Amino acid sequence: MAIEIKGDSVTLSKECFEEQDFSYYGRLKGDVLELSLVEAAFLIERERLDLGITLKEFFKVASTIQPYLDLKYVVYKDLRERGYYVKPSVTDFRLYPRGGRPGEGPASAYVYVLSERISVPFMELVEKVKLAQNVRKKMLLAVVDGESDLTFYTAKTANMQGKMPPLGLDFSEADATLLDDRVVIWDEHDAVQLYRAGFYGKLVDGKMLQLSLLECAYLMQLGLPVEDGATNRRFTTLQFIRRAEAIEPEFAMKLDVYKDLKDRGFVVKTGFKFGSHFRAYEQIEDVDRIPHSKYLVHALPKDFIVMLPEMSRAIRLAHGVRKRMIFAYKGKKALEYLDIGRAKP
Amino acid sequence: MAIEIKGDSVTLSKECFEEQDFSYYGRLKGDVLELSLVEAAFLIERERLDLGITLKEFFKVASTIQPYLDLKYVVYKDLRERGYYVKPSVTDFRLYPRGGRPGEGPASAYVYVLSERISVPFMELVEKVKLAQNVRKKMLLAVVDGESDLTFYTAKTANMQGKMPPLGLDFSEADATLLDDRVVIWDEHDAVQLYRAGFYGKLVDGKMLQLSLLECAYLMQLGLPVEDGATNRRFTTLQFIRRAEAIEPEFAMKLDVYKDLKDRGFVVKTGFKFGSHFRAYEQIEDVDRIPHSKYLVHALPKDFIVMLPEMSRAIRLAHGVRKRMIFAYKGKKALEYLDIGRAKP
Repeated sequence: MAIEIKGDSVTLSKECFEEQDFSYYGRLKGDVLELSLVEAAFLIERERLDLGITLKEFFKVASTIQPYLDLKYVVYKDLRERGYYVKPSVTDFRLYPRGGRPGEGPASAYVYVLSERISVPFMELVEKVKLAQNVRKKMLLAVVDGESDLTFYTAKTANMQGKMPPLGLDFSEADATLLDDRVVIWDEHDAVQLYRAGFYGKLVDGKMLQLSLLECAYLMQLGLPVEDGATNRRFTTLQFIRRAEAIEPEFAMKLDVYKDLKDRGFVVKTGFKFGSHFRAYEQIEDVDRIPHSKYLVHALPKDFIVMLPEMSRAIRLAHGVRKRMIFAYKGKKALEYLDIGRAKP
Repeated sequence: MAIEIKGDSVTLSKECFEEQDFSYYGRLKGDVLELSLVEAAFLIERERLDLGITLKEFFKVASTIQPYLDLKYVVYKDLRERGYYVKPSVTDFRLYPRGGRPGEGPASAYVYVLSERISVPFMELVEKVKLAQNVRKKMLLAVVDGESDLTFYTAKTANMQGKMPPLGLDFSEADATLLDDRVVIWDEHDAVQLYRAGFYGKLVDGKMLQLSLLECAYLMQLGLPVEDGATNRRFTTLQFIRRAEAIEPEFAMKLDVYKDLKDRGFVVKTGFKFGSHFRAYEQIEDVDRIPHSKYLVHALPKDFIVMLPEMSRAIRLAHGVRKRMIFAYKGKKALEYLDIGRAKP
């Protein structure tokens, strides 16, 4: 037979594929052209390939060979119809830049097809992004939702860099008290100074400063003395962190990221209103004119499993308020950051 | 002593509170005025009440008596400074309408103070909302984040009502196949008819319809026959639902809500892009002119624990795309809906 389904491809003998122009489809193996099942489905649908069976029959057979063929088909078709050349690849597809063609220049991105319903270990995603970046390609995530609608995301590692100078203040004499789940700095001078220097805490009545537990733990490491409002005894930093861990889930993980971002020169505030751990400002020169915060940062544990609807929500939200959504995670040596944003290929 | 901290109030003897105008603060018990600790803190800070101790000292003592006094203080102060009269109440505060005063008319809302960090059983929230509504008051949630910033939400039960007529189509002869995690309707006439009549599925190439598992399970109950692409055998509805449950977490819960919304006359599509289970349209008359979907609907299990950062994110997102955020849950008799939105008191 001149055309047949063989393993996970459709093979065409020479006389068969030379009848038609199949350039940029499949790959030549000697005298035989091997089309992937997705390519074959696309060509059948376009009535350019005839296997003697209907598209429905082909899909039924091919779906038993390749899981999620229908998802891949939806993505492949979408990209082709936007005028891109697409070739099968290890991470689903290689995408050629607009105007580029297979064989005439390198692909610009890898496309990774995901179903809304299938969760992915976060570190697997990170590995794929790094692999793509190692060969200087972008990583495009194509997420297919329950109704076969597509959303594209780009994922890339982020080298986070803020512009704030180190906090050059001495507050070793400050008077700070933990009340329930926040810390109050009572002295007006200290309160105002700390607020103005680094946008720490919230200034109440212009004279009292309420610090978050994270801000306080960080400042304690720079010398801020803090006492327990219930006992009037001074905390060691470790005691304070233990207490904060009891109050706030994920405190230790968040503190790591908070400190790292501070070390990188960011002003870091809670991202609560945006449903993330932090919002990060590259620089605040004057607390009376707070600029737009560029990033939302969410800390993830190393074994985090990405639920795509959740990720979609976070990114959509960040996008809506014109911020980049950054996921922080522990790399092999240090904290690393992954920037995921909506994309239109 | 004329002024003293007694139980969870600050009591003032007659000669003491008559010196100053404390109208609308506290409540009279015989000859004694009882101020709540929050009211007392507010008056101390305003230098209208003198207990002979500083605000700091008062806070330290009062915090050991009333948990989260500082949270409640932040909310009380904020509302007072916006010009509202606020009185202590079972659910934290009663709020009087703009221009209204205690004793001169009813309160308009209950205010429930929450910390970003403390999770709340969803059904507890529902109970509070219903209690408030029973006495014709609004329920205002005041959420204090880690940096003492406030976000207000209104929560109310929603009587969801769409305008779509029942689907009057016979598709008992249709040809539908489950492939992996979606269902394809192959016949062009059936596909187009179903798509146009109720915005079901996604029309591929104008001739094939891809249905989501939910849409398919619903349509099966209206008579759609569906076969398994792997075996060519026809599913019973129950078999299909079991299969779908294996593919999609929460399928059963989502199907209940999907069906209920359909019965209420909505067009229901996935809310994936918005991080919710569904988006719901009151009416679609013409699929070529899809209107704005008014609601995002998220189904919650009965024992759901609200994590406020998560809830905040969902509502913020809905708000950003000008939709109402609706949470669906099983009430005592039927499905019920809670509408939570951002509020500016």
